Amino acid sequence: MTTTAACIEATSAGADLTKGTVTRRDLRADDCLIEIRWSGICHSDIHTVNGDWPHDNFPMAPGHEIIGTVRDTGADVTRYSVGDIVGIGCMVDSCGECASCTAGEENYCLNGMTGTYNSVDRHDGSITQGGYSTHIVCREDFLIRMPEVAGGLDSERMAAMTPLLCAGITTYSPLKHWGVGPGSRVAVVGMGGLGHVAVKIATALGAEVTVFSHGLSKEDDGLRFGASSYVATGGDAADTFHKAHADEFDLILNTVSAALPIHRYISMLAPDGTLVMLGLPPEGMNIRANQLTGRRRSVAGSNIGGIAQTQEMIDFCAEHGITAEIELIAADGVNDAYRRVLGSEVRYRAVIDANTI
Amino acid sequence: MTTTAACIEATSAGADLTKGTVTRRDLRADDCLIEIRWSGICHSDIHTVNGDWPHDNFPMAPGHEIIGTVRDTGADVTRYSVGDIVGIGCMVDSCGECASCTAGEENYCLNGMTGTYNSVDRHDGSITQGGYSTHIVCREDFLIRMPEVAGGLDSERMAAMTPLLCAGITTYSPLKHWGVGPGSRVAVVGMGGLGHVAVKIATALGAEVTVFSHGLSKEDDGLRFGASSYVATGGDAADTFHKAHADEFDLILNTVSAALPIHRYISMLAPDGTLVMLGLPPEGMNIRANQLTGRRRSVAGSNIGGIAQTQEMIDFCAEHGITAEIELIAADGVNDAYRRVLGSEVRYRAVIDANTI
Repeated sequence: MTTTAACIEATSAGADLTKGTVTRRDLRADDCLIEIRWSGICHSDIHTVNGDWPHDNFPMAPGHEIIGTVRDTGADVTRYSVGDIVGIGCMVDSCGECASCTAGEENYCLNGMTGTYNSVDRHDGSITQGGYSTHIVCREDFLIRMPEVAGGLDSERMAAMTPLLCAGITTYSPLKHWGVGPGSRVAVVGMGGLGHVAVKIATALGAEVTVFSHGLSKEDDGLRFGASSYVATGGDAADTFHKAHADEFDLILNTVSAALPIHRYISMLAPDGTLVMLGLPPEGMNIRANQLTGRRRSVAGSNIGGIAQTQEMIDFCAEHGITAEIELIAADGVNDAYRRVLGSEVRYRAVIDANTI
Repeated sequence: MTTTAACIEATSAGADLTKGTVTRRDLRADDCLIEIRWSGICHSDIHTVNGDWPHDNFPMAPGHEIIGTVRDTGADVTRYSVGDIVGIGCMVDSCGECASCTAGEENYCLNGMTGTYNSVDRHDGSITQGGYSTHIVCREDFLIRMPEVAGGLDSERMAAMTPLLCAGITTYSPLKHWGVGPGSRVAVVGMGGLGHVAVKIATALGAEVTVFSHGLSKEDDGLRFGASSYVATGGDAADTFHKAHADEFDLILNTVSAALPIHRYISMLAPDGTLVMLGLPPEGMNIRANQLTGRRRSVAGSNIGGIAQTQEMIDFCAEHGITAEIELIAADGVNDAYRRVLGSEVRYRAVIDANTI
């Protein structure tokens, strides 16, 4: 029996989102039905809805930061029971057989992981629909067990964990992969949804964190989140901000999707340092080989993280008291929230109360 | 007492090289005087002599692949004695105090290592003069002990080890740094002086090696050096050569200094794979972040190796019977050799018999 779920959807590229419905499939043997409680708004939702990355999958309900309760389980589900509080991030499936999947890195599935929305279901060919909805169906292998928190599912603390399912793992994974720990010098470029979580996680891992942000309007927040210094990269500083930081950082996480003067950031990498791209600037980056060779520097990219590591990240954040800074919004506030995200006005992530959908 | 040594020098940018003399300094306490027997011709010698990398240090004797015999030692020299056969590569000094130097990676000296030629001596401010010469003075800490080979210093086998001091360490260092061993899939781009040594060393490390070369004229050699396959990247194949190798390589060593369609090479990197730049293309590379993020790929650069690792490389090559393929030339053949290097006609490295200088 399929489930008809209320949702917030885009009916065409760039249109305001409106209320609608999505059909959730009958449970396969390894599926769970989840009643959604919280759903985060990621900047990539906006790119997708606006057609910045062209596709024809309208109407579409975006959303890949989801927390809710298991309401039904398929015949073969063993690890979750009705009533469990679970999270879903950017993936709901992968091939399970390639070298990446068997290594637990489904996010790099060589046959293409299945995104939580705007992706082709690998079993029935339907287009996946995301978390701006009251219910979703997902394989148990792609669920994350949420920790117990005071106040439970309805608490603002739980709501504030929602963005960790994307912003948390997107920043935690490279911090872990590149070995960040006590003594590491980490730079975070951009302090939005991803960046502010990156500062918190890197700090909790023991790193010394410097934020590079266009201006200083978020400096107090950055220092409160754990950064030891905060550097303005715009205005009068645009041509010189990097000079006092030559050869300084072991890892630079670039959370900014706009084009940057990338050579200035590379110049701040220590020997063996790595600049990791987390966003996708529309243009290519002009990278000079001599900036890399002279210090054995790297420019790399990272894309979310595997399911096991996402669980590890959630447990780490619970242990260290890390949540995102959020603005809770109701369903009818989504379009306004989108405009405010684009204006960098949201501090730092908008989360939809799915009870209002 | 300074030593006047015969040399082959460039008196101005782009001029043919001619015979001349250089003055070698009195031995400092930690110096050795070396009588040079073999001196390799590196493509970067030609760039420097031609003024492709502008400088005013003419007249200049280039050369940073050197093998010879210790003829005198400074008062504090402990590790070398008169008669020892030693090598000198691209460096003759470094600060010794920065994080890179204390980690044994003098090649990444944060205060700038002193190049074997065209570099400022950090003690007396003179401009260093290279190996196209009969004698050179060098700190003992920057000498490499050459292995015993049949026929000794005068053997062609010893001559054929000369290019290892630059081409060998330039390729060995990244192969080791990025963990190449049995089961690794390595691509070598370009099969010139660096590339052909890279094929031999990667093979000896246990990797499966594929060569990417403009045409197939060197295919037989490549397979003989140990490659398991050889791919033409020019002509009709220029737009398609990469397609059969998507996601294949753990490490790609790019030995080509000319601009390449870098996105095609990046597309051949497996998850967590790294493309390492060894040469310095004159223009920046246009790199698309989405090619990196989707597989956690990296683009990096590497520059020769530290002294300890250079010794390790020489010992490794001796153990595995690895030498460069060389053409022995006399001093009066240097200008012709330069033209043939530029025409990719030398197979695969020219080595000057310093007895003819």
